[in-house]
Parts: sequence; structure tokens; C-alpha cells
Amino acid sequence: MDEAAPFFGGIEAGGTKWVCAVADAEGDLLATEVIPTTTPETTIGAAMRFFEDRQPIAALGIGTFGPVDVRPGSPTYGHILATPKPGWADVDVVSPFRAALGVPVGLDTDVNAAALGEWRRGAGAGLGTLAYITVGTGIGMGAVVNGGLVHGLLHPEFGHIRIPHDLERDPFEGSCPFHGDCLEGLASGAAMRRRWGRPAEHLDDPSVWELEAEYVALAVMNLTYALSPERIVVGGGVAKRPALLPAVRARLLTLTAGYPGAPVPVGPAAMEEYVTGPFLGDRSGVAGAVELARAAVAAPNSPRF
Amino acid sequence: MDEAAPFFGGIEAGGTKWVCAVADAEGDLLATEVIPTTTPETTIGAAMRFFEDRQPIAALGIGTFGPVDVRPGSPTYGHILATPKPGWADVDVVSPFRAALGVPVGLDTDVNAAALGEWRRGAGAGLGTLAYITVGTGIGMGAVVNGGLVHGLLHPEFGHIRIPHDLERDPFEGSCPFHGDCLEGLASGAAMRRRWGRPAEHLDDPSVWELEAEYVALAVMNLTYALSPERIVVGGGVAKRPALLPAVRARLLTLTAGYPGAPVPVGPAAMEEYVTGPFLGDRSGVAGAVELARAAVAAPNSPRF
Repeated sequence: MDEAAPFFGGIEAGGTKWVCAVADAEGDLLATEVIPTTTPETTIGAAMRFFEDRQPIAALGIGTFGPVDVRPGSPTYGHILATPKPGWADVDVVSPFRAALGVPVGLDTDVNAAALGEWRRGAGAGLGTLAYITVGTGIGMGAVVNGGLVHGLLHPEFGHIRIPHDLERDPFEGSCPFHGDCLEGLASGAAMRRRWGRPAEHLDDPSVWELEAEYVALAVMNLTYALSPERIVVGGGVAKRPALLPAVRARLLTLTAGYPGAPVPVGPAAMEEYVTGPFLGDRSGVAGAVELARAAVAAPNSPRF
Repeated sequence: MDEAAPFFGGIEAGGTKWVCAVADAEGDLLATEVIPTTTPETTIGAAMRFFEDRQPIAALGIGTFGPVDVRPGSPTYGHILATPKPGWADVDVVSPFRAALGVPVGLDTDVNAAALGEWRRGAGAGLGTLAYITVGTGIGMGAVVNGGLVHGLLHPEFGHIRIPHDLERDPFEGSCPFHGDCLEGLASGAAMRRRWGRPAEHLDDPSVWELEAEYVALAVMNLTYALSPERIVVGGGVAKRPALLPAVRARLLTLTAGYPGAPVPVGPAAMEEYVTGPFLGDRSGVAGAVELARAAVAAPNSPRF
């Protein structure tokens, strides 16, 4: 191995845990560490120690929970925006690392990072477009379109789209503090815990998972018709329930009703290719964060992929 | 003017009418003609005569109603796919022009062309991302993301997303032959005509337009959270009703509830900038088709923008 080849750092800065990694020049992960997300000081401090112990790295990439200001040139670039997470609103997750490590820092959302990781090294390898939905404590979506991650005024906040909510079948009013029964308010892990009184991993009633499959299928349907991605990866803790994705695929076939015909999946085999779990398991986000670091070295003045 | 500068042709091939235009090298429209959409033979023939009378053009761009196969290299590239429009399924809208005119032909959907036209010459000039929703006989959406139009397995079919449908307020079952009460099934001109028994332009009851504003606002909300575009242009015949866009903007402010805070529009002034009518009026689509022609000359082997 070339001793001079650079190493890269990546952080998947999630709302529950931070996954830190150092990777080689090809982006292969060499060391990882999982840090629980507590206060900004403690969490950022622990991540900092991980990278200080593994100097030098050529750049760092951060995929963070959001909403986060990812607009290059904005005065609050790198700051977490309005989050219900106590203590984290307005926290700058970029500057401390840039100051302490003295390297370029790439930034995006955790879900955009996961989409990038899967696109470069997993379920999206060779594809032109890829979307990644996480169904965990919250719901989010990231996507690669035309060779870059999706941004605009800010970044996608797909968990907050509105979907049909049949109040007779599901009288739960929704858990989103902003929208009540948006997608995240109906189908996130937090919503499941509120509706059923127990966390998703302790829920085994088939009707619970039928309802969850309905909402996730509606999300995948809307994403299909909005973005026409070549593949949709569904990750996150709630999506680890083995029965969920098969139920989502089956329901999606019924919901889309074959429209507009092939090339959109119209049969079970094509659907199995179309809606998949993450090929990188729990490492999509941090692998994408490392890709953000590699991109930050290539274009330090436009630190987005 | 430079006599040697090339001219370009563009067609907005809509389901109701085709708008043909010839433009100069800068993309400024020199001549336009509107042809009613009848049978493929008659409509394509009339468009052909328009361009044959205005030879030579360096390239032609076509933005067509869909679904249409826009995948370069596909055996059915340029063919209209499953359309309820009698006589048009499987019609090849590209080859006849390429054969008769002997020039490169660029192709996309009518709404992607409209998004491109507005991005290059209208509401999106200077922006990084732009989405265009048409609310006419049908509902469609096109968008520019990362410097290109959005494609994947096919192209967006945003009219077919599912949105909340309050059956007490609106017992209409929806007009979409595939999905019933998808967005297009609830809010398109065709849906309005079916629900109320008269075409949209003859409907003046304020409650009709309150309901329409609700559905269009839900569409704009979902597009906002899916794509985070910098601006959303709402065009199409139904959207010409002067009261509609102001009502959509007001409703959108309530629906989004300020989430996730600025930079997403949180007040009326920002909202007025965010949701606009087409700056090019009825010419967004054909102006974008001309841009497709210009791009086809630049990259004849990858005839998409």
C-alpha cells in the first residue's frame, strides 16, 4: 500500500448515535466507532477524540440529522436548524472539526450521505439515479440525481409529505409537532411508539405491520412518481423488520396499478429489484460521509456533492 | 444578424394542442403555430409542414405529453407509452421528424420542457433548482436538479402521487383510471369537469376553488419536501384562474406550519417569490423544446438535457 495515500474521515451524525469512521484512499472503512448522541459538547467531543487519535486525515465528511443549513456561503452554514432535539438547535457541527483538524469538511444530511454511500458503493452502483428512504425514529430521504445530491432552498424533508390517512382504520392523530399526520407523524418509529405504547421492535401484531407497510408503500409510490428513481433503498431501524419490505413491495404493486407500465416495476420480480434494503447495512451513511470527504478535497470551495 | 447562425425548432406536443416554433440561435422565438391534437397522422403531418416550410433548422426539440419513453438507447425511445388518449399509445413522435428533417431531435416530457424553458429564460433564471407543475386537463411536473432535467426509470409522473382526500368534504371518487383519487384524479381539469359537470373555466363557486387550492397546495407541499426546489412554477389552464395561486400560497403557509423554518418560505412575501405563475406565459413548453434542440446539437449522442 502506498504510504503517502491519504486517509479520510466520515461521520454519520444521527439523532440517536454518531458513527465515526476512517477510510483509506479508496473509501474502504478501516476503523469505526459508534457514539451515542447526547449533548452537543459530549458527542462532538467524543467524535473529535476519535479523529485526533487517527491523524492525519485529508478531509472529513459529515452526514447529519437535520434540518441543517447545507447552503454554501450561508452565515449559518453547518448549523442544525429547528430541531425538536433538546440542545441541538443552532449547533454548528462543522466549524469545531474544521478548526481542530485543519482539513476541508464536506457536509450534507444523513440521508443524502446514505444515498451517496449506496450510490457509490452499494445498491446504486452503476445507476444514474438513486433514492434512499430511512424509516427510523424519524423519516427522511436523500437522492442522487444527475450526478449530485438533491438540494435547493435547503434539502429534502420527505418525512413531512402528506399522504392519505384513513381515520377509520387508524384514528391516531399523528405525532409530528408541526404537521400531525404527515408521513413521519404516521409511520416513524416515534409515531409507532406513541400510537401503540411500545417501541417498534416490541410490536408483533400483524395488523401493526400491515398499517406500517401501507404508509411506507404510499411514501415509495409518491417518491416513484416525484423523482422516477432507478432504485429506492429503504433503510433505518423500523425497516429492519423482515416482513416489512416484502409487504411494502406487494402493496406498491397494487397501489401503482401498473401505471405507467414498464419500465416502472409492474411485477414482483422487477419490484424486488426496485425496492431494496441497504446493501451496506448500517454503514450507508458513514460510507457516504467518507465520499463527502473525498469530494471536499477535490472541490474545497464547493463543499457539497 | 449573422446569416450563418443556425435556427432551431421546438414542439410542445400537448394532449390538447401542439405548439410549434422556430427560434434563432439565442433561443428567441421567431414564428409559432398552434395545431390542435387530433390523430397522430394529422397532427404530426401539420407539424412537419410547419418545419418543412421553415428549413433549414439545425435541430428539433420535442416536449411531449406522456408517459413517453425518454430513455436513450431504448428500443421504444420516442414512443408514447400507456396513454388513455385514443390512437396515441405506441406512437413514435421522434423518428418521423428525424427522418423528414434529417437533424438531431431532442426529446423530453412537456413538463420537463416547460421547467427547462422557465429555468433558462423565465422564472428560474439564475436558480440552481426549479420545478414546474402544470394543472390542466392532466397534472404533471418537471424539474431541473443539478443542471439537468429529472429522469430515472422513466420521468416524473407527479400527477399520480397520493394526497389526503377528505371524503366528507369531497365525496368525489376521483377520475384517474389507474388510481382513482390520486392528485390528478382529484385536481386536474378533467377531474373538475367530472366532479362538477362543467369545465373549470365555467366554475365560479368559491367553494370549488377553495377545494382546488387545497389539493394544489398539498401537491406543492409534497414537492417542496421531496425536492426542495428554489422556486415552484404553477402553470396550465386551470392555474390561470386568478384567485387560485394566492389561495394556494395562503394554504401552503398553514399546511407547512413554518417547517423547517427559513430558508423555506415562512411568510407571505417569501411565499409570493416561491410559488409563481410561468414567466413565459403559454410559451414555457415550446421555449424549453427549443432548448432541447440546442442541447441536441451540442450532444447528439445523449439527446436529453
